[in-house]
Amino acid sequence: MTTITQTRTATATSPAETSTLPPISRLSRRLSEPRGFGDQTLIVPRPDAIRLLGGIPAPEALPVPDIARVSTELWTDPAAATAALQYSSATGFTGLREWIARREGVDPARVVITNGGLHGLSLAVLTVVERGATVAVDDPIFPLFLRVLELATDAVLPIPVDGDGLDVEALAARLAAGERIGAVYTVPDFHNPSQGTLTTDGRRALVALAEQYGFYLLIDNPYRELRFAGDDQGLRPFHESDRAIVVNTFTKTLGPGWRVGWLVLPEQLVPPVIRLRNRLDGHSSTVTQTLIEHLVLTDDGWFDRVLAPARALYAERAFALVDALEAELPGAFRTVRPEGGLFLWPRLTDDRVDAAALADRAAAHGVLYQQGEFFASGPDRWEASRHLRLAYGDRTPEELREAVRRLAAAF
Amino acid sequence: MTTITQTRTATATSPAETSTLPPISRLSRRLSEPRGFGDQTLIVPRPDAIRLLGGIPAPEALPVPDIARVSTELWTDPAAATAALQYSSATGFTGLREWIARREGVDPARVVITNGGLHGLSLAVLTVVERGATVAVDDPIFPLFLRVLELATDAVLPIPVDGDGLDVEALAARLAAGERIGAVYTVPDFHNPSQGTLTTDGRRALVALAEQYGFYLLIDNPYRELRFAGDDQGLRPFHESDRAIVVNTFTKTLGPGWRVGWLVLPEQLVPPVIRLRNRLDGHSSTVTQTLIEHLVLTDDGWFDRVLAPARALYAERAFALVDALEAELPGAFRTVRPEGGLFLWPRLTDDRVDAAALADRAAAHGVLYQQGEFFASGPDRWEASRHLRLAYGDRTPEELREAVRRLAAAF
Repeated sequence: MTTITQTRTATATSPAETSTLPPISRLSRRLSEPRGFGDQTLIVPRPDAIRLLGGIPAPEALPVPDIARVSTELWTDPAAATAALQYSSATGFTGLREWIARREGVDPARVVITNGGLHGLSLAVLTVVERGATVAVDDPIFPLFLRVLELATDAVLPIPVDGDGLDVEALAARLAAGERIGAVYTVPDFHNPSQGTLTTDGRRALVALAEQYGFYLLIDNPYRELRFAGDDQGLRPFHESDRAIVVNTFTKTLGPGWRVGWLVLPEQLVPPVIRLRNRLDGHSSTVTQTLIEHLVLTDDGWFDRVLAPARALYAERAFALVDALEAELPGAFRTVRPEGGLFLWPRLTDDRVDAAALADRAAAHGVLYQQGEFFASGPDRWEASRHLRLAYGDRTPEELREAVRRLAAAF
Repeated sequence: MTTITQTRTATATSPAETSTLPPISRLSRRLSEPRGFGDQTLIVPRPDAIRLLGGIPAPEALPVPDIARVSTELWTDPAAATAALQYSSATGFTGLREWIARREGVDPARVVITNGGLHGLSLAVLTVVERGATVAVDDPIFPLFLRVLELATDAVLPIPVDGDGLDVEALAARLAAGERIGAVYTVPDFHNPSQGTLTTDGRRALVALAEQYGFYLLIDNPYRELRFAGDDQGLRPFHESDRAIVVNTFTKTLGPGWRVGWLVLPEQLVPPVIRLRNRLDGHSSTVTQTLIEHLVLTDDGWFDRVLAPARALYAERAFALVDALEAELPGAFRTVRPEGGLFLWPRLTDDRVDAAALADRAAAHGVLYQQGEFFASGPDRWEASRHLRLAYGDRTPEELREAVRRLAAAF
């Protein structure tokens, strides 16, 4: 030990010293370094830069006065306060699970409370994705899912996503051609980044493939409640299947800061997910679950009364953004008017535009967005690179119009 | 697909149906079913049963009025409320990390906020314990750690724990004899279940072994702040080593319901733990971190003003329990007066007593506790089985005296 201590003091940064540290686990070494999406912190933006970077709900859409109300009720009621500060169950609060189950149309026993959507995804991946298995995923994709997936595998089969969500026929063709997968990952409502919604028929066809070929579906649905146009395609096909894990969260409706979400699991997956939970973090915060349960149980209409103005606000913002692009940069993009969610995914019409250079110029002009390229899930990044992902949720219409003026100047 | 659907409808519970479900992951299959400790829910206790089951802080010791105050301040300040509802960093709140770092005497860059102690343990295990590696652990042990450890391995080397905590000389002897381990797990202050505290010399010797043989230390320290007698043995040996991961939590001081704790990591482990966190759950709740940060930053003395009466209360309870055992059951147990923490670990003096039968009779008489046997970490469960683990934290002195009268009746 003396020798080692002396070595450390003498040559604290030498390779010899580094080599004496015990290795981290293979699992840990397999997790990639940050790159692309999420690395916007590397940019030093203009102080007045307008950020269209993340799927962040509008502060104005979050029910702060109601939170203040239930919070006061909680902390001034000694018995309730005491209960909120104690341990609670791994499955989550009964009243909250029952409320979610009523809303989703499932048995409450299938609902497990999580620490938000990403946590739900990691629980699902660790439970059903075998080490090294191939997972079919959206292309383009919510890139953080690929990081979550690294917990089990980095073998992905990219499946195109279009205006109707995941191209289930393309998946079926790959399976018919002999590809074998352990799971499918998709965002069925208001796809991140590409806006599409999987049709009810597409959902049924996807479930049929899962049953035919024997794999699980990881259905990631954080934007589901933010529909402001078009028709809801329903979750019934997923909820009626014992192959579909539906992942949702209060992040986009009551705020990301809670870190409270839920899984709707096929019955047979509840015990393994709970066993995993017992080992990863015990249970979700009793404090946050108490407050959210009190909120949603205020009365039958409370949650929808929160959502109605939120949907109207996101519609106004989405349409302001589309209209501004058409007015300021006519013909520069092919855009689809969003029916919900928090993202616009305009495609550059001129293939000669250097998308990376455009993003840099836009940043210099004071508007930040995610380059489409970051969202490719396969080796062919060209089609994704032709898109911009513009997140409008937490920007006012005026900010969005100014952002587009700056983008036009950068063009 | 049609065939499968018909099979499901016709014979929903047949083995043929079960076999068509995709398998869960090997990791998930490796996680054991609940057994022993934690299965007290299997007992249907008398309605008036006194529970001495868990390391639960006293409700009276939790600062509810202060929580009410910071909560009102937060939710009536629109800017602060908005920030509390948004995403935050994977490492945790800066002010909270700085406060913890000052208290622990480390660089704030080494502090990572977690969702409580168990979460800190799972992050540490997944980061530094190689699949299948042997981990030296306390014997007796906090049994939930063995479950967390299943995430990586089930190979354990039990090391005895006595009144001075982990028997570091016994560990040194096993290492000298050729045993090789990936990590050591121990609770150094007010050991759960066996009350002991590792001496400063023992801590230094343990760190020296970690440096000599090249392994990490998992130092689980939830009871550290609950000292009411004797001398603090300090964390400096651990904090000065690049082999020690110190796991702590606000669970026993501000309440389990928050699910907020922290890791003090060697510098080189911060990036891998954050990469893991990025994939498991993103970050700890912004809401709970905001409230706890406001609480501890109330003023420099706030946390100690919360702890002082809590320590006095736990001392009163611990001594009431010891005194009652001596008065009601003289000579039946060998007891050590606790210096802190939430547990008494009395040993039966008569080896002929059937400990399992005693626990059943005690339950019938209306007192519930954990059987010592549940805490053995090795194949030899005899010595542990001679103990009872009595958790006194959330029971009043009067309840404890009544519990001992019931235990005496069961004897």
